[in-house]
Amino acid sequence: MSEPRLRAKEWDAADGLAAKRAEFVLDEGDGGSGGGSGGEAVYLDGNSLGALPVAVPGRVEDVVRRQWGALRIRSWTESGWWTAPERIGDRIAPLVGAAAGQIVVGDSTSVNVFKAVVGAVRLARSADGAAGPARDEIVVDATTFPTDGYIAESAARMTGCTLRPVPPSDIPDALGDRTAAVLLNHVDYRTGRLHDLPALTAAVHAAGAYVVWDLCHSAGALPVGLDEHGVDLAVGCTYKYLNGGPGAPAYLYVRAELQDRFDSPLPGWNSHAEPFGMRPEYAPAPGALRGRVGTPDILSMLALEAALDVWDGVTVEAVRAKSLALTDFFLECVEAYVPEGRVECLTPRPHGERGSQIALRCPDAGDVMKRLIERGVVGDFRHPDVLRFGFTPLYVGFADTERAARVLAEVLAETGA
Amino acid sequence: MSEPRLRAKEWDAADGLAAKRAEFVLDEGDGGSGGGSGGEAVYLDGNSLGALPVAVPGRVEDVVRRQWGALRIRSWTESGWWTAPERIGDRIAPLVGAAAGQIVVGDSTSVNVFKAVVGAVRLARSADGAAGPARDEIVVDATTFPTDGYIAESAARMTGCTLRPVPPSDIPDALGDRTAAVLLNHVDYRTGRLHDLPALTAAVHAAGAYVVWDLCHSAGALPVGLDEHGVDLAVGCTYKYLNGGPGAPAYLYVRAELQDRFDSPLPGWNSHAEPFGMRPEYAPAPGALRGRVGTPDILSMLALEAALDVWDGVTVEAVRAKSLALTDFFLECVEAYVPEGRVECLTPRPHGERGSQIALRCPDAGDVMKRLIERGVVGDFRHPDVLRFGFTPLYVGFADTERAARVLAEVLAETGA
Repeated sequence: MSEPRLRAKEWDAADGLAAKRAEFVLDEGDGGSGGGSGGEAVYLDGNSLGALPVAVPGRVEDVVRRQWGALRIRSWTESGWWTAPERIGDRIAPLVGAAAGQIVVGDSTSVNVFKAVVGAVRLARSADGAAGPARDEIVVDATTFPTDGYIAESAARMTGCTLRPVPPSDIPDALGDRTAAVLLNHVDYRTGRLHDLPALTAAVHAAGAYVVWDLCHSAGALPVGLDEHGVDLAVGCTYKYLNGGPGAPAYLYVRAELQDRFDSPLPGWNSHAEPFGMRPEYAPAPGALRGRVGTPDILSMLALEAALDVWDGVTVEAVRAKSLALTDFFLECVEAYVPEGRVECLTPRPHGERGSQIALRCPDAGDVMKRLIERGVVGDFRHPDVLRFGFTPLYVGFADTERAARVLAEVLAETGA
Repeated sequence: MSEPRLRAKEWDAADGLAAKRAEFVLDEGDGGSGGGSGGEAVYLDGNSLGALPVAVPGRVEDVVRRQWGALRIRSWTESGWWTAPERIGDRIAPLVGAAAGQIVVGDSTSVNVFKAVVGAVRLARSADGAAGPARDEIVVDATTFPTDGYIAESAARMTGCTLRPVPPSDIPDALGDRTAAVLLNHVDYRTGRLHDLPALTAAVHAAGAYVVWDLCHSAGALPVGLDEHGVDLAVGCTYKYLNGGPGAPAYLYVRAELQDRFDSPLPGWNSHAEPFGMRPEYAPAPGALRGRVGTPDILSMLALEAALDVWDGVTVEAVRAKSLALTDFFLECVEAYVPEGRVECLTPRPHGERGSQIALRCPDAGDVMKRLIERGVVGDFRHPDVLRFGFTPLYVGFADTERAARVLAEVLAETGA
């Protein structure tokens, strides 16, 4: 056994999170592609769709058969359906450094970006009052996951603002007294770069603007510290490192001090102070509830609630430590196994700038990823030339990591560059 | 056995839809409240949450365990997750009189109302061009389910329009060359009144405006005829007469001829012409796809898909005929059993003005409904004094209907007025 393989074995044996792996379904079942040197796939695509937690199927069955099938309408109160968006928000809160009462679950990430960006512009304008400057600019990370930019453009159009895409490194210089809101990604979906949330948040505040952080690629993988760093609003999905299932509902964070002034562009009946009063006039609910819109999507939402059980007894700090060890080890193995120049790492080396994925540029990335998947190493391909490998510390180990690098080297040796 | 009970028995025996009842879970299981004269409850709350179709639990289990658990990320293509919003939209289409390619499933009804109303305003303005009048009014049914009014108010604010709530009967007179969009309910959620969709649609068009119909309380209960009557846009939920499950995704209809000009205020990456191109510039997809926003909520969406199997071999016309027979019979039994003046029927008698529910005004409605539910007759209470009874022809029969009226009379005899 090679030196890295031996080391991986030792590290897995000493890993305090190793037992968590049993809380996930990782075999290929009847849908498996077989292949690979071991029986299980190495699943490095948890940054796109988290693996199935073992607790989920039974919980979903209970929701469908008993709560819906037998209790029917009574479940809105008796099974806690009505309060699920806030209750599950409070389960996510400690994972992103938020006290209770600030996160509500529901809708897609895109819809929450719209609520948050429009809300931030309105907060900026209401804070300045009539005497303030005319804040008419929304600044957005130019390297963002596209949906954030598209939705920010719509938010700009509908609030009379101009959208200004700016590379993250230039953002502090781009801010001014016309900036209303700034939409940023905590971790870049493509390169895995981690942006400096505390510093950028402080810079936005120094300009008198409001910041919205997109946590899709950081929540559940590393500490976020929303409360500690005074973040105004944040959104995130729950189907990556939070393992909530395909298209599971997203969430919205509105800092407690801002909730009374948060003015949602989607004031559905679920965000009304008295939703069953059926009043013709809208009056917003206090607190995180104000971020709700329509009837919550119960099946998906309660699957997510069951999925969050895997966080019992786990700290985000422990997850982060293992994540960095895994990505460090992956880079080390790639360097050891893959001929120099065959791939280029797009993910920053410094820990302070790295999320929980490694992105490798490779001219024939599409073909390479296809072959990797055939051999049981599942990452993903991002157009035109990027191989992405996501590391979910709750179910990915060091032997997996070494195997992934080894199979990658085999595939690269076979294919032309 | 009384004369109405005998008649109910005969009618149930002759009912061509009676066999459909076996496709639903209607016993109370381990969540039952017992009570009632029969073993099963009479479930007359399908206009709030449809009963569980028998096909759903197994399908959901497959989606969770095999599609998510074993295939994981591959299911986006191999299990048809990616195309589910349009595919399921095409399953709903014949139920509302729409040809394929015009309905997309996803998001809540409230979010779809926002897309549709903003979209309608933009259609009106783009149709008129620079030479046209300044269309700056949105007309909304003043008796609407509140969320439609709240969302229309937000749509008005964000498009520079004024919101004008008008009682449905006055709507034709309220329209003019300033009207951009009109948001109407096909069936009123409280009274069960059916509005005249063909005539109101024609009136809106005559004014040069665009109409949005909310089908929450009509789809699956009666013919809608979206294509036939030239409706512009429509939205609806899927958890009432379509039995999709609690908070199941809603849908958006955009008439084929308008799709190229439909300009969504929520242009998420799922509505992009090339969603995986990850391009910074937004370019909308053609067709119904343009109504998508973010990642579709797969668990809830595929539960809905399984629920739609109950429509195999059923025509909406047959459902409508039975619905009218059931509500006629319920009114007849209520008149026969309940002392005159104890309740007042809010639902219109003429078939052309009646949805699939009966609303009875009763001063102590809250207490009365509580007692009805204890005896196995499940309707619902709407503040302050309305008893609602929804009739879902696929699983409600004539004996159920007679029993509901009889138990209602017993409860009313015991309680003071």
